[in-house]
Amino acid sequence: MPELRKDPVLGRWVIISTDRARRPREIKDGAPASCAKGCPFCAGRERLTPPETLAFRPPGGRANGPGWEVRVVPNKFPALRVEGELEKQGCGIYDRMNGIGAHEVIIETPEHSRRMEEQSRDSVAKVFEACKLRIADLSRDMRFKYILVFRNEGVDAGSSLSHPHSQLIATSVTPKRVKEELNGARAYFDYKDRCIFCDIIRQELSDRVRIVYENAHFVSFCPFASRFPFEIWLLPKRHQADYATIAADELGSLADAMLVTLGKLAGALNRPQYNYVLHTSPVRWPRKDYWKTIEFDYHWHIEIMPRLTQIAGFEWGTGFYINPTPPEDAAGCLREVDH
Amino acid sequence: MPELRKDPVLGRWVIISTDRARRPREIKDGAPASCAKGCPFCAGRERLTPPETLAFRPPGGRANGPGWEVRVVPNKFPALRVEGELEKQGCGIYDRMNGIGAHEVIIETPEHSRRMEEQSRDSVAKVFEACKLRIADLSRDMRFKYILVFRNEGVDAGSSLSHPHSQLIATSVTPKRVKEELNGARAYFDYKDRCIFCDIIRQELSDRVRIVYENAHFVSFCPFASRFPFEIWLLPKRHQADYATIAADELGSLADAMLVTLGKLAGALNRPQYNYVLHTSPVRWPRKDYWKTIEFDYHWHIEIMPRLTQIAGFEWGTGFYINPTPPEDAAGCLREVDH
Repeated sequence: MPELRKDPVLGRWVIISTDRARRPREIKDGAPASCAKGCPFCAGRERLTPPETLAFRPPGGRANGPGWEVRVVPNKFPALRVEGELEKQGCGIYDRMNGIGAHEVIIETPEHSRRMEEQSRDSVAKVFEACKLRIADLSRDMRFKYILVFRNEGVDAGSSLSHPHSQLIATSVTPKRVKEELNGARAYFDYKDRCIFCDIIRQELSDRVRIVYENAHFVSFCPFASRFPFEIWLLPKRHQADYATIAADELGSLADAMLVTLGKLAGALNRPQYNYVLHTSPVRWPRKDYWKTIEFDYHWHIEIMPRLTQIAGFEWGTGFYINPTPPEDAAGCLREVDH
Repeated sequence: MPELRKDPVLGRWVIISTDRARRPREIKDGAPASCAKGCPFCAGRERLTPPETLAFRPPGGRANGPGWEVRVVPNKFPALRVEGELEKQGCGIYDRMNGIGAHEVIIETPEHSRRMEEQSRDSVAKVFEACKLRIADLSRDMRFKYILVFRNEGVDAGSSLSHPHSQLIATSVTPKRVKEELNGARAYFDYKDRCIFCDIIRQELSDRVRIVYENAHFVSFCPFASRFPFEIWLLPKRHQADYATIAADELGSLADAMLVTLGKLAGALNRPQYNYVLHTSPVRWPRKDYWKTIEFDYHWHIEIMPRLTQIAGFEWGTGFYINPTPPEDAAGCLREVDH
């Protein structure tokens, strides 16, 4: 059973994988290389994964058989385990609990070598629909407080299998980073009576120097205080705190915005490795002030972080970042790329 | 002039290097490869660096000439500039200021290929003494709020020159990560009337399962909630908030503890790349409650982070970490290595 341990000074949780501890030499060797021949995510090899939790198939298709378009399965090597109780306890001055959670893989397409920006709009819309359905389903488990969707593209971005896939982790604690966003957004709302993300969208659409792409429902831009060169945020224009409330026509628009944005990134930087994360509101959040709810002050969004520079001592020591590329330059460069 | 920009949601500052912006292709190519032949930090090439701010030489040595043991110089490509005013201002809803600060390089030894753990105890003690003297000097500049010492070992850890060196950055804002530590330590002190770091030391010396090394004045251990495999923290046993108050005999003891700890790490993991950061109290910190001062609730320390695993979407999205090696296993492995 993996263990959640809390840093006593910062309150930051760490997942310690006590049951699949790797020896020093194995750590240096890194993750197993991806192999198209034995890829467990390719069509026809469905028996190599745990049974699916969701799949989109033409009518008449058989569960855990081929013919699917998008397939969601539990991670075979999960960071958190779905069975068991939290069993919170102290260890001297420290705090720990069992590593309870869900860890699923969203296999985006049966095709092995198709990066997200090379997939069809319809296919990507189905990926985001699958995320929505899995979040809605997992939200019903009272042990979970947050559900994060993320994607690692490339070995340096932490991916161990090259077949196109996103991941979903449900956690029993609200992540520190999300809490900070919620608190920041709440503080702004208290002061201004407006959603800070809505204000950011307004500012960006007015300045127009950091915009990457815009369609009817979404806008992507390089944020004013970009941590990384070519960092991009993508937000729905309509105020929405909870990703799971996305409408059917917005899913297609989201797929379009992601395809164009990632396509421009691939064109500008020769298909870079990247991570993206989808930040939505927590599934359970204490509402001390009932008249001010999270629906008003939070706004879901996607953060895309190309892996171009190293994180070094300065970043680890300060939590600040040094970015050699002004977001205005990055956005200008991305706007010029046709996609 | 570099620019400091604030993330409007998180309050995190980013340094945007507007005057040495790199084009996309240059970013992908990475930092210049180190070259022993043209290394600007080797003895005899002192003219290749800006004039030194500090150096240890035998009596009679000439400033900016050879013969030095440790040499501190301004960074030729600084992340922050020392000349100018902050000029804080708003840009619509955003906040920015000039990138004012100091960025210095501590050249640890005239010898090009000697990692810190291969240097002599006396040499390393001089490096830490140089840090102390530079912090004390820069503290007098009223524009600076924090001074961070850090070290990047290896290209993946962000180092662009292989000659052994540490770095020092003075910033005009207290780093987010340090603020979080100060607030966490203050909250614990408010509740317990004890320094949390002193309590951690007591717990570790009692449990003894995560200890790496211990001498008269210092102890190093793998922290209970280690973010990374083989992460190590090193703390003075005597309660000290401010690194600049370290005593002369403690400098030798610190050098010993760092040499043994880094030597064990090099032995266990075949000379891994790593970062370390020195967290000390801010040089200027508002004291709202004068009877509770930072001298009581904070405790300086060094965090050593080997670069063995990738930071991926989960870490970026949550601020939490997945660590495949329990700190108890890592510490056991390090204790077995002779150094």
